[in-house]
Amino acid sequence: MKLKLIAALLAATMATPALADVLIDNVEGLTIDENGKVLRFTGIVVDDQGKVAKVLQRGDKKPQTDYREDGKGRVMIPGLIDAHAHVMGVGIAALTLDLSDTNSLAEALEKIRKFAADNEARPWILGRGWNQEKWGLGRFPTAAELDSAVADRPVYLERVDGHAGWANSMALKAAGITTATKNPDGGRVERLAGSQVPSGVFVDNATRLMETAIPAPRPNERDLAFAEAQKVLHRLGITAAADMGTSIEDWQAYRRAGDNGSLTLRIMAYAGGPQNMELIAGSRPTPWLYDDKLRMNGIKLYLDGALGSRGAWLKQPYSDDPKNTGLPLTAPAQLRNILVRAAQGNFQPAIHAIGDAANAEALNAIGEIAESFPGDRRWRIEHAQIVDPADLPKFAKDGIIASMQPVHQTSDRLMAEARLGPNRLDGAYAWNTILQLGGKLAFGSDAPVESADPFAGMAAASTRMDADGQPFGGWRPQDRVTREQALAGFTSDAAYAGFAEGRFGRLLPGERADFVLVDHDPLLATPADLRATKVLETWVGGRKVYDAD
Amino acid sequence: MKLKLIAALLAATMATPALADVLIDNVEGLTIDENGKVLRFTGIVVDDQGKVAKVLQRGDKKPQTDYREDGKGRVMIPGLIDAHAHVMGVGIAALTLDLSDTNSLAEALEKIRKFAADNEARPWILGRGWNQEKWGLGRFPTAAELDSAVADRPVYLERVDGHAGWANSMALKAAGITTATKNPDGGRVERLAGSQVPSGVFVDNATRLMETAIPAPRPNERDLAFAEAQKVLHRLGITAAADMGTSIEDWQAYRRAGDNGSLTLRIMAYAGGPQNMELIAGSRPTPWLYDDKLRMNGIKLYLDGALGSRGAWLKQPYSDDPKNTGLPLTAPAQLRNILVRAAQGNFQPAIHAIGDAANAEALNAIGEIAESFPGDRRWRIEHAQIVDPADLPKFAKDGIIASMQPVHQTSDRLMAEARLGPNRLDGAYAWNTILQLGGKLAFGSDAPVESADPFAGMAAASTRMDADGQPFGGWRPQDRVTREQALAGFTSDAAYAGFAEGRFGRLLPGERADFVLVDHDPLLATPADLRATKVLETWVGGRKVYDAD
Repeated sequence: MKLKLIAALLAATMATPALADVLIDNVEGLTIDENGKVLRFTGIVVDDQGKVAKVLQRGDKKPQTDYREDGKGRVMIPGLIDAHAHVMGVGIAALTLDLSDTNSLAEALEKIRKFAADNEARPWILGRGWNQEKWGLGRFPTAAELDSAVADRPVYLERVDGHAGWANSMALKAAGITTATKNPDGGRVERLAGSQVPSGVFVDNATRLMETAIPAPRPNERDLAFAEAQKVLHRLGITAAADMGTSIEDWQAYRRAGDNGSLTLRIMAYAGGPQNMELIAGSRPTPWLYDDKLRMNGIKLYLDGALGSRGAWLKQPYSDDPKNTGLPLTAPAQLRNILVRAAQGNFQPAIHAIGDAANAEALNAIGEIAESFPGDRRWRIEHAQIVDPADLPKFAKDGIIASMQPVHQTSDRLMAEARLGPNRLDGAYAWNTILQLGGKLAFGSDAPVESADPFAGMAAASTRMDADGQPFGGWRPQDRVTREQALAGFTSDAAYAGFAEGRFGRLLPGERADFVLVDHDPLLATPADLRATKVLETWVGGRKVYDAD
Repeated sequence: MKLKLIAALLAATMATPALADVLIDNVEGLTIDENGKVLRFTGIVVDDQGKVAKVLQRGDKKPQTDYREDGKGRVMIPGLIDAHAHVMGVGIAALTLDLSDTNSLAEALEKIRKFAADNEARPWILGRGWNQEKWGLGRFPTAAELDSAVADRPVYLERVDGHAGWANSMALKAAGITTATKNPDGGRVERLAGSQVPSGVFVDNATRLMETAIPAPRPNERDLAFAEAQKVLHRLGITAAADMGTSIEDWQAYRRAGDNGSLTLRIMAYAGGPQNMELIAGSRPTPWLYDDKLRMNGIKLYLDGALGSRGAWLKQPYSDDPKNTGLPLTAPAQLRNILVRAAQGNFQPAIHAIGDAANAEALNAIGEIAESFPGDRRWRIEHAQIVDPADLPKFAKDGIIASMQPVHQTSDRLMAEARLGPNRLDGAYAWNTILQLGGKLAFGSDAPVESADPFAGMAAASTRMDADGQPFGGWRPQDRVTREQALAGFTSDAAYAGFAEGRFGRLLPGERADFVLVDHDPLLATPADLRATKVLETWVGGRKVYDAD
């Protein structure tokens, strides 16, 4: 029975004539419906195109189908959608060596040696997560120590906080690092005791000296990374993602997967800048490709940096750096020029804006241009972290979607308090306020900057407490959203933000049968249980793409 | 009836369930068959996938089909395949201004003015074909004269022979040309009488000064150019082409056409160099996409230049330039390295080799590598114009396909005699000799360098006489091929050279229904009639893409 079912479902995903309809019942199902309300159901029928044909309620007569799968009473929710991720980055991060679980230098060196041996084809060994404090080393490790593990290829490993990197001798050579190499502004090249000889560790801005030497991933490495990204995301219940900053190289990898039938993640792509947008899509967004699995929707733009590095552009100086307001990365005329070019081609702009000045500029620029480009544009501001309360109504006014990442709030709250002081937090991560003002939200993770786990995202969104339950009662709890709004943010609203409503994001007739079977009802579980939700199975287009067993 | 038929055929090209089978009968049909022989027939049945379902012989019972189209006794041949073309180049050339029919400077200026007005969106006006001798001007034209036609945008126009170019003032400015600009080696910047002021005309190598200033076509311009290329080729009866030197920009335009359903030309793509190959296809050739309409087959490499500019690499010096042997553009180790990388990924290499030294090097390099990469590789040498007779057997030995362009022989014969002298012509354009030695041919045009017209190609292949019937009896007539071999070179053999046999190139059951209705039987027409063949209709995958009416 099971083999037959899989065969039927496999066939259903291909453009060949149908083999069979499938009933999946005995589930505790829930979805957001057309009106934004929660609809509960007990089963679905998936048609021969991998779409939902019917949603069954308790007491409905069981329909005649070719096959039936018993849901065994598990909870069925729509496939989760990450409205802001870096898909290729997730895969590349998954393919690099993770040293965060090592407890000594010796243990780390052994793990590095083994990783290099297991990955002979890789020209560079890259990794992250080491921490000499945790190792009890009392000093930074050295290139010579790293050479003892791997000497035949360059190795470069980021420290756990991303603020330092550790290179072996071949990596130093590849980067042209010598005793003559000077410390850059804001950075330090560590030296061997009593000499000018670089020791192998680079701190803060000095890490750039190494990073620029690392070759860009080759196309076959991107193919591997993308396959890994799909695995990582499906394991977390994610069936679709907005890819923020798609390069031509990324796009080609997605297309290769689509062409050879291995594309299982639905990708709403936002090109990294105007050149990528034009090169990929020409003068219009692409159609939906591969049965609604890939579309170039629009363009990702950077208007400012981040709070952590004080690159976010603020209206008033940083509380912890009174001479600095951050700065815009895109000049006013250039921003408007790109927005107009995008709008002329019906491309959807997604503007990265973190500080209140950046958000004001993004909202105002869109406001000016929206008059010339009426219609359903779905302008997006990505992050929208710190917004002057006076600017918050502008989201609703021009139909601008606030694409936000709930976990950033829980990760960044102490830093945000330090950067902004106590009097500029009213528009900080203001999810509920934006909704109450009539605006629209979409939720995502910013993975791999944060974990892609959408259950952590939903928990943060509905509690404004972190994984440790801090702060008790939630940080500025008036801006938390309901469980239903959190689920919508990661399903139907994220689909809407990518022009995908009606295609996927809800378990309703005519939409793609993308769903997840989980062990807790996300609307009823305790915050701790919601966070700990176990994804049992993930299905895309009526086909199983992940099974925890 | 006609509308219904079109609806049926349109539907047949989509991935939706079938609407109808179609009978096209009352034709004088001919195709190359599985054995390389000519098969004559009276009709075909096209199935709901746009493939040939049945080939009818005289006296066969007429099958039951949903629709019937009367061929009205016209000649039906397989869609013609150009085994060596620059598809985007054909389109770009078709979009530029053609001044070759102008008889005076005034007439040319009027045509330029009108073209600029008709093409307001183009940032540069580009053209070709002017000839101040034909105009009776007695001197070169000037930038000021060109300004009188177009002053709001840069204009650059190639002379009829490609050895000079004419710019307006905005183009001079864009290229940074001033009185201080020096003549480059092998080139001359024309000056106004009695001064150092550039006049606007650039001769020979000086044309590079202008050419580097012309911006690359934008993606939307490429989309336009590609649409134009399809029209130009279909009008000539061409339904498929090997695209030699596909860039990522070209590839994206082909995909956009495929994605939006406007791809009607079958393209076997050979990437322009290793970077394009990897970026487009990753580690393997792409699958056949869009119902056998697009595949990245392999890689195009340049081993030498051309005879005309004495860049072709010869074993002995040029007869008309005794100190020069031309030179290799790719070093031996680099050539072998690229061939190995391509072969490892099952990419098909297509090596441009014109001179006898280049052909020897290509044949030898493939010979060395072929031992390590057995199997059906179909190594290709493009042009293979001048081959040392001692090297000719190597084509057959390693299954190397000679991809040749018959019209080059008729265009270049006098120049070839001058460059090579009388004693090095035995292996020149040696089509029949290669066949007799057991080698394989594929025929193409090198368009837009030559016209893409395959009937001119078939006439040249089977007569070795040019359009004026010169030289009478044919140039080195022992190397002409039969009419049947000429047709195979532009159909079944060109398909084989692109790993497309069984998919298209013959009108046999299971192959795509790509065919042309013409007014002369290419196997029976006089050479003059063959050359003058009128394409009445062109069909791709059972769908009409060109109709002369």
